[in-house]
Amino acid sequence: MQYYIPAIANLIEQFARLPGIGQKTAQRLAFSVIGMPEDEVERFADALREAKKGIKFCKVCCNMTDGELCSICESDRRDRDVICVVEQPRDVVAIEKMREYKGLYHVLHGVISPLDDMGPEQLKIKELLARLAESDVKEVIMATNPTIEGEATALYISKLIKPFGIKVTRLASGIPLGGDLEYADGNTIHRAFEGRQEI
Amino acid sequence: MQYYIPAIANLIEQFARLPGIGQKTAQRLAFSVIGMPEDEVERFADALREAKKGIKFCKVCCNMTDGELCSICESDRRDRDVICVVEQPRDVVAIEKMREYKGLYHVLHGVISPLDDMGPEQLKIKELLARLAESDVKEVIMATNPTIEGEATALYISKLIKPFGIKVTRLASGIPLGGDLEYADGNTIHRAFEGRQEI
Repeated sequence: MQYYIPAIANLIEQFARLPGIGQKTAQRLAFSVIGMPEDEVERFADALREAKKGIKFCKVCCNMTDGELCSICESDRRDRDVICVVEQPRDVVAIEKMREYKGLYHVLHGVISPLDDMGPEQLKIKELLARLAESDVKEVIMATNPTIEGEATALYISKLIKPFGIKVTRLASGIPLGGDLEYADGNTIHRAFEGRQEI
Repeated sequence: MQYYIPAIANLIEQFARLPGIGQKTAQRLAFSVIGMPEDEVERFADALREAKKGIKFCKVCCNMTDGELCSICESDRRDRDVICVVEQPRDVVAIEKMREYKGLYHVLHGVISPLDDMGPEQLKIKELLARLAESDVKEVIMATNPTIEGEATALYISKLIKPFGIKVTRLASGIPLGGDLEYADGNTIHRAFEGRQEI
């Protein structure tokens, strides 16, 4: 039985396709859209289209941009000796918010994950190697996530970089600040022990 | 500092306006939209517009419809002696899913709530009274939510219906099935005691 008129059922279905949005939440969101003023719904629909259409990838680092180069590659205040390799554009945002890192980035757009049919050739690895060949970068920081796939990808890429003679580093893993040993999993504690430093 | 290009920042803002969607979730949703194929994003944007534009309210019961009358008012298999008064169209869906109720509905589109500037005149109360004056309904079931506002609205409307000499009933409140006395609040337990029935 059809409880909703088709236009609403369709909108609910569209919301339910988004990650982390179940059927109940999708219903709530759809009804809230119906309750919005019409011009606000128009703005929402336009924002969807424009975000999708207006986005290009930086010719250098593959980060999202609306021009040829992203604002970080374009900036003359960044340290061009260091490249931080991340999985996704959102990771660039997370690191930028820290306001400490002043080097450049390279966005892989994924990790090696055979289960998801993601091999090295789908990632922006050859773009990274081409960059390294042309510039005189001194350090590559592997900042993929400390997951099995992220670790494997970092290892894979670091082996490819070795012939260039460039230093490759990996972000430290361990107990997060404000975290609690009691609630940290064994692997994290193991990593924190391995990475311990003299104080 | 602007971490996102404007098109993405705008989409994140649009998602964050939805109820229950915070900044982090809005970011996640926006990035998932950017990762979708373009035709899927188009379908999403169209679904938003069409859900908003295609919706009318049933001339009789004020439920959502895409025609003149809603499918329930149009049906000849519904019991026209009973009207169930609910707050929102989604409540109609919740009751219909039970597949037990065969009467008609009346959707108020809100409850009396002075804090939200909602008075009786903003609700579809006069439409309900006009319906009652014209038909020979035998029972009105007040199915507003068992909140302070829902209770007050039910009481207010029941007083207006009294002159018509129509029976007005209220949905039972109590411990939900599968619920646990231990976790029920005092008011619910109180209501369950008041509404106790002989077995």
